[in-house]
Amino acid sequence: MECNRSNKMPSISKSKIAISPCAENTINPIRKLVDQLIINPNPTKRLLKLNIGDPSVFGNFNPPPEVIKAVSDNLQTSCYGYIPAHGLIPTREAIANFYTTEKSPLTFEDVYITSGCSDALRVAMDCLGSEKGNILLPKPGFPLYQTIAGNRGIPVKFYNLLSEEDWVIDLKHLEQLIDENTAAILVTNPSNPCGSAFSVKHQMEILRVAEKHNLPIIADEIYQNMVFEGDSKSFGELSTNVPILSCGGLAKRWLVPGWRVGWLIVHDRHERLSQVKDGLIRLCQVILGANALIQGAVPQILATVPQSFYKDTVTRLKKAADILYSELKNIPQIRPFMPKGAMYMMVQIKVEELHDINDDMEFVEKLIEEQSVFPLPANIFGIPNYVRLVLTAPEDILREACKRIAEFCDVHKLRNLPKRSRGCP
Amino acid sequence: MECNRSNKMPSISKSKIAISPCAENTINPIRKLVDQLIINPNPTKRLLKLNIGDPSVFGNFNPPPEVIKAVSDNLQTSCYGYIPAHGLIPTREAIANFYTTEKSPLTFEDVYITSGCSDALRVAMDCLGSEKGNILLPKPGFPLYQTIAGNRGIPVKFYNLLSEEDWVIDLKHLEQLIDENTAAILVTNPSNPCGSAFSVKHQMEILRVAEKHNLPIIADEIYQNMVFEGDSKSFGELSTNVPILSCGGLAKRWLVPGWRVGWLIVHDRHERLSQVKDGLIRLCQVILGANALIQGAVPQILATVPQSFYKDTVTRLKKAADILYSELKNIPQIRPFMPKGAMYMMVQIKVEELHDINDDMEFVEKLIEEQSVFPLPANIFGIPNYVRLVLTAPEDILREACKRIAEFCDVHKLRNLPKRSRGCP
Ligand SMILES: Cc1ncc(COP(=O)(O)O)c(C=O)c1O
Ligand SMILES: Cc1ncc(COP(=O)(O)O)c(C=O)c1O
Repeated sequence: MECNRSNKMPSISKSKIAISPCAENTINPIRKLVDQLIINPNPTKRLLKLNIGDPSVFGNFNPPPEVIKAVSDNLQTSCYGYIPAHGLIPTREAIANFYTTEKSPLTFEDVYITSGCSDALRVAMDCLGSEKGNILLPKPGFPLYQTIAGNRGIPVKFYNLLSEEDWVIDLKHLEQLIDENTAAILVTNPSNPCGSAFSVKHQMEILRVAEKHNLPIIADEIYQNMVFEGDSKSFGELSTNVPILSCGGLAKRWLVPGWRVGWLIVHDRHERLSQVKDGLIRLCQVILGANALIQGAVPQILATVPQSFYKDTVTRLKKAADILYSELKNIPQIRPFMPKGAMYMMVQIKVEELHDINDDMEFVEKLIEEQSVFPLPANIFGIPNYVRLVLTAPEDILREACKRIAEFCDVHKLRNLPKRSRGCP
Repeated sequence: MECNRSNKMPSISKSKIAISPCAENTINPIRKLVDQLIINPNPTKRLLKLNIGDPSVFGNFNPPPEVIKAVSDNLQTSCYGYIPAHGLIPTREAIANFYTTEKSPLTFEDVYITSGCSDALRVAMDCLGSEKGNILLPKPGFPLYQTIAGNRGIPVKFYNLLSEEDWVIDLKHLEQLIDENTAAILVTNPSNPCGSAFSVKHQMEILRVAEKHNLPIIADEIYQNMVFEGDSKSFGELSTNVPILSCGGLAKRWLVPGWRVGWLIVHDRHERLSQVKDGLIRLCQVILGANALIQGAVPQILATVPQSFYKDTVTRLKKAADILYSELKNIPQIRPFMPKGAMYMMVQIKVEELHDINDDMEFVEKLIEEQSVFPLPANIFGIPNYVRLVLTAPEDILREACKRIAEFCDVHKLRNLPKRSRGCP
């Protein structure tokens, strides 16, 4: 079939193709900010990337061999075909068993497998929130919540976390934000970016607010059990009456964020989520769920990874936090916050103590340019003048980063000169 | 921390938690219909499931060893971490090279990796369609398009495929449906459920309609190259002026639908899709993309799977089609349509030739109950009184199914009695 199209076609219209409001409003604050950031590392120093919440970056936090073996074993059996969009029953069952407690027994029907925790969050937020139904988000908080809300046109309001009180929720503020259109409260515990972990007492206070206002909680518990001291309880375990949609996954605790297997666990003691459960299944069907190869390996992963692996990860994260904290706490121009869990440390930038740095963005840009150290400006998480460091780097890199930050702060510290005047005598 | 919650908590509100309109409207027609279908197989006969478009179901269409090896190799290297949400550059590059033709050269920047072809369709439809921007869909067509549109509140209109002309698009009808708010035309080629494959001439006609109305085409080309005779061209290859968003993936041609790696390839010769490209990246970020383990194996898969594998698959599918066609064409009460590609055959049910069967749903229910043969009623795809059979079953199962269908039709054939009167003399 020969087609001399150029003769037959009408003249070319070169107008741009417009995109939908949905696409316009799907904004990833990280990308937006990182795009704005001027990243010119000092060529004489090795770049230390303490910005990415990916445990695999430095090669020192690897998944345990049992995880690799489970996938390798599964690859030999039939793991090629379509499976139910909300997950394989044995996988759902294994997760239900893994997270069952005496007070919150789970069955496979409470578990929905998703393409990473992100997809669990999409499904949860899509199911509860809407153009009319707002969702309350933490500030500072993980930016993906806003990406999803923007994508769906869900209005959000931000409740404050209190830096001076171990980043607990400002419950008064939270309660003030609740209105008749509020559809859910989203909480992150342990927290990215704060590295905080709530006490059970505080969790109960949060549950009480939710119960009083008859609201379900979307609990982003991807860092569940990754706490440095004591026990960590999930919201589902503690709730008697508040419906909980808990989002989790393999990414952080099993150290395979690129594998995109997550889950949503529903805690619904009073059968108030029957519609929601049906909605969750249908929302999973939009992309037909998580990959069968890795998902199918989950029962073996949960059965074979030894407790020592989980403990070791947490011990090493805590050690990294100790190193950073002890090195950074003596630098007068900054203030580290000792984390209690997850993989991050927040560090406040005392801009008033720095003579030529006005905010966290400028701090990071200059730190990269002069010292090749790259933390994430916390602007990305909704608060100014903090940076977030990751705990997953090897000890020597952490120590070197601290040394360079100290030097940097010393160079830029206030010198009894009026701010910004140095350059123009 | 002891918490005697039962004393302190206010009284339990047992109201159900409502779900969003988005969740309400996320409807999967397959699930809805299959839920309605009464499936009671005849216990004396083995159930022959010719309903599911999953090549792996019968164990005779397996991925080639090169595919397994590529993933196994990748599992040994670092494939654990986060990767860009729209895909690894080497993977995007390998796909660009694989689909590059002289007339439509591609670079990695034209390729977006997604969680299956479904996710590529989500991203494409979300990017172009909106509450105000309708999308035109084929009828009969793959039901997921409606699921995605319902999820996003995108209005859809259905253009007819002409069964009597090898299921080509009724171009007049298509053009009548276009209005000022039409955002895109979605075409499926080769087609699920029709098993059709358009001629280049017809593809050019479709492109001309799109060009005339200045519309982009979303081309679902997951079955690209799976045609029984001659050459198959993608819309991207043929288009000079019409922007094409082509959706594909590993699912069908590489026979691993459960692995959830798909892609979207943008053909944009006149740089009219710059906004769209940016929107696609942001829409990929909502779920952070496809899994790194399998995605990372794609370059090796594309480099090592021999041409003979692709040929063999198509040869075997054609053979299955030949068997079904030759066996079914002599049954007076039904009419098979010889497919030209993909994995399906449409069979018309001549209800007027059957004395107690009123539609495809009833045909399928009774066929299951009496003969334990399970085709999919084409109601699911938007047209009545057809059923869809899959070509991926082994020869003996196909022959056995045909025998049983013949017997079934003979039992139910019109016997010169007025319809529906047999039971009540
Ligand atoms: C709080 C929080 N939730 C969710 C995610 C996303 O998890 P996943 O990679 O499983 O989608 C992250 C990743 O950094 C996170 O920090
Ligand atoms: C026409 C068509 N498009 C898309 C898909 C979905 O492909 P995937 O499994 O890669 O999401 C299918 C699956 O059957 C299909 O038939």
